[in-house]
Amino acid sequence: MSSPAPQTLPADSSESVSVEALAADCKEAARELSTLSTDTKNRVLHRMADELEASEDGILAANETDMEGGREDNLSDALLDRLLLTPERIEKMADALRDVASFSDPVGEMRGTRKRPSGIEVAKMRIPLGVIGMIYEARPNVTADAAGLCFKAGNAILLRGGSNAFHSNQAIAAALHRALDDEGVNPAAVTLIPTTDRDAVQEMLTLNDHIDLIIPRGGEGLIRFVDETSRIPVIKHYKGVCHLYVDRAADLEIAEDLLLDGKVSRPSVCNALETLLVHEDAAEDFLPRVKELLDDAGVELRGDAQTRAILDDVGEATEDDYAAEYLGLTLAARVVGSDDAAMAHITEYGSNHTEVIVSDRLPAARRFVRSVDASVVLVNASSRFSDGGELGLGAEIGISTTKLQAYGPMGLEALTTEKFVVYGEGETRHEVEK
Amino acid sequence: MSSPAPQTLPADSSESVSVEALAADCKEAARELSTLSTDTKNRVLHRMADELEASEDGILAANETDMEGGREDNLSDALLDRLLLTPERIEKMADALRDVASFSDPVGEMRGTRKRPSGIEVAKMRIPLGVIGMIYEARPNVTADAAGLCFKAGNAILLRGGSNAFHSNQAIAAALHRALDDEGVNPAAVTLIPTTDRDAVQEMLTLNDHIDLIIPRGGEGLIRFVDETSRIPVIKHYKGVCHLYVDRAADLEIAEDLLLDGKVSRPSVCNALETLLVHEDAAEDFLPRVKELLDDAGVELRGDAQTRAILDDVGEATEDDYAAEYLGLTLAARVVGSDDAAMAHITEYGSNHTEVIVSDRLPAARRFVRSVDASVVLVNASSRFSDGGELGLGAEIGISTTKLQAYGPMGLEALTTEKFVVYGEGETRHEVEK
Repeated sequence: MSSPAPQTLPADSSESVSVEALAADCKEAARELSTLSTDTKNRVLHRMADELEASEDGILAANETDMEGGREDNLSDALLDRLLLTPERIEKMADALRDVASFSDPVGEMRGTRKRPSGIEVAKMRIPLGVIGMIYEARPNVTADAAGLCFKAGNAILLRGGSNAFHSNQAIAAALHRALDDEGVNPAAVTLIPTTDRDAVQEMLTLNDHIDLIIPRGGEGLIRFVDETSRIPVIKHYKGVCHLYVDRAADLEIAEDLLLDGKVSRPSVCNALETLLVHEDAAEDFLPRVKELLDDAGVELRGDAQTRAILDDVGEATEDDYAAEYLGLTLAARVVGSDDAAMAHITEYGSNHTEVIVSDRLPAARRFVRSVDASVVLVNASSRFSDGGELGLGAEIGISTTKLQAYGPMGLEALTTEKFVVYGEGETRHEVEK
Repeated sequence: MSSPAPQTLPADSSESVSVEALAADCKEAARELSTLSTDTKNRVLHRMADELEASEDGILAANETDMEGGREDNLSDALLDRLLLTPERIEKMADALRDVASFSDPVGEMRGTRKRPSGIEVAKMRIPLGVIGMIYEARPNVTADAAGLCFKAGNAILLRGGSNAFHSNQAIAAALHRALDDEGVNPAAVTLIPTTDRDAVQEMLTLNDHIDLIIPRGGEGLIRFVDETSRIPVIKHYKGVCHLYVDRAADLEIAEDLLLDGKVSRPSVCNALETLLVHEDAAEDFLPRVKELLDDAGVELRGDAQTRAILDDVGEATEDDYAAEYLGLTLAARVVGSDDAAMAHITEYGSNHTEVIVSDRLPAARRFVRSVDASVVLVNASSRFSDGGELGLGAEIGISTTKLQAYGPMGLEALTTEKFVVYGEGETRHEVEK
């Protein structure tokens, strides 16, 4: 199915390129990719990794151009750090591609084979989605990471990176194209839109005949814009307001560990904790000992009246606090009278992302697991495990807090779907008269 | 979680009702439904069936009002037949609900449990989607059928039926509400929008905070309108342009049977055949014998030049013919030089619905199965098996020819999603210093 005609690489195209034409090429490439053997896909992924490493000088030079532009644009230090590539970061990108090669290939998996009363044999076969549209901001590593995951799942990818990372993304995409081309795979399988024109995103979001799924990665503003504009299904999450609920029968040592790991180890990520809920029977014991640990870690605590009755020197938690994704060293706290009250709080303020209960009572744990509507629900384990790698997906291309197609961290399987396959021996549904 | 406060039934509300308020009630009911036991759900489904039968007189009277209105509106006989309810049809609705009670409950199913290197135990648990919005046209039985399937999968449903079926739908929904109420389940679990106001559909399609999925059922016009207007994901299929490909090594007896079953047994449905593709090595044998059978069945054949060189008295098949969903006794035919040519034709003209190969060559069959992009691919079996019941899904709530969330006939599983469930013993992602 492969051996494509040599073609102009998208990265070489002029600024006046038609996004629709690129997407059409992508769709054609997706058709070829859907039947590539696992061996071929893995060989290409290793070749991509090698090409990235071989292109280090060129990628670093392109990145320096972007960094200069970023400094001229007065990007914050945090954004400049996201934009920056180093030899180590390029090696990490290459290793990530080699990791993806080691993951098992979901395409072609069969399940649920059954013989029906009519005589036909029915099964479901896992197949790629087709064309994934990726819209992202500063981090150039997304170009390689997302391309690798989509490719392994048999999908073509249409990439629209941030304008600040334009040259870096072009250099990375060019390396990936060389790998595809060398292995005889249609290079349009990985297509970077070669323009910083904002209209290109608008156009991309209307191409529902060519693109099967849009994944935006970036700030809430970008994601809302994409979600409100797109005629193509969007998989997204806005934020993670994650709770730790300490039940009345909790192991308080474990509760301390999970709170510190969840709040302190990396407060800027979406699976960090924002709010502590404590059963009133545990509050007198737990709150004073945890307050000390939080103070030592530099975490500011804000609480409801019951929390403040137990602890001195704690500010008031407002409605805004309970709704906040702090992304920093602040923690809201609330004392609750029952498991139901804890779950009601989570229903009201949670973001369907990640929720944790600490409890030794099996019925309470099982009820929390069944009832709490979040993409990842944990019992006696840290919220920070809500991550594709930690959950065993290999890597993740994004997180979904909506329930269609995927809920939670998305790995290779979430980039596929299933079709029905039927084998028969001439069965008809009605008797045929001839 | 249940025992809801008695509330005004949506069916009793005034015309000036807020769709948003109804959807909010629906969402609240969905939360309660998500943890109902399978026993309770089955008991409610049987009660719904009993209430439908007990309400026969009232439902028939309401239907007579709709039928009178339909005749005044000069609805076609076909539409009037879809609208008509009879004691037999009411019994069929009731039996369908009892069938749904007998299906296994997908909610709570766990799969893929694995221990991770960190020590945590990860599994996926199947959960309901939440609120399903159903927009449909004349058939009042959809009210009960869709409500039953959604309810069994733990979802609330917000129904917007056709204005011609308004009174019938109200009477059916009232019977379902009595069953819910009697069993102590929030009646908002099945909510019929009690107005024929067109703006209600528009409003419904904006409520992406309340409704998780929209399923339109009806003509292409309705589906396009819903798809283009909705801010909520839509699962849909427009049409079924289904092909039968007769390979050079086909059993021609089987090919005849599948062609007749697919084209003649019920030409008005979406899994009926529209186009016959014949390998050139089989054409001389197959086309003359099948022509006779098609003539006997009253099927008009239209063919390409090669077909017409073999058969007299066959009209020309145009581009429009190959793209057509005839829904009647017309069949397009084309002679192809290879499997690849057959698959290329299907790629160009197919609708991702249902495709069939007749072949005794295993490599050809397997390649067709892998390569053809359709939600149901059959080998040596009739296209008419592309149906939820025949494939073993129990019943179907719709068919998806887009790949997100579901591809093909959708049963209970397609009305659910999965969340991650993690059990640990205090594991943290990073070492905690205390």
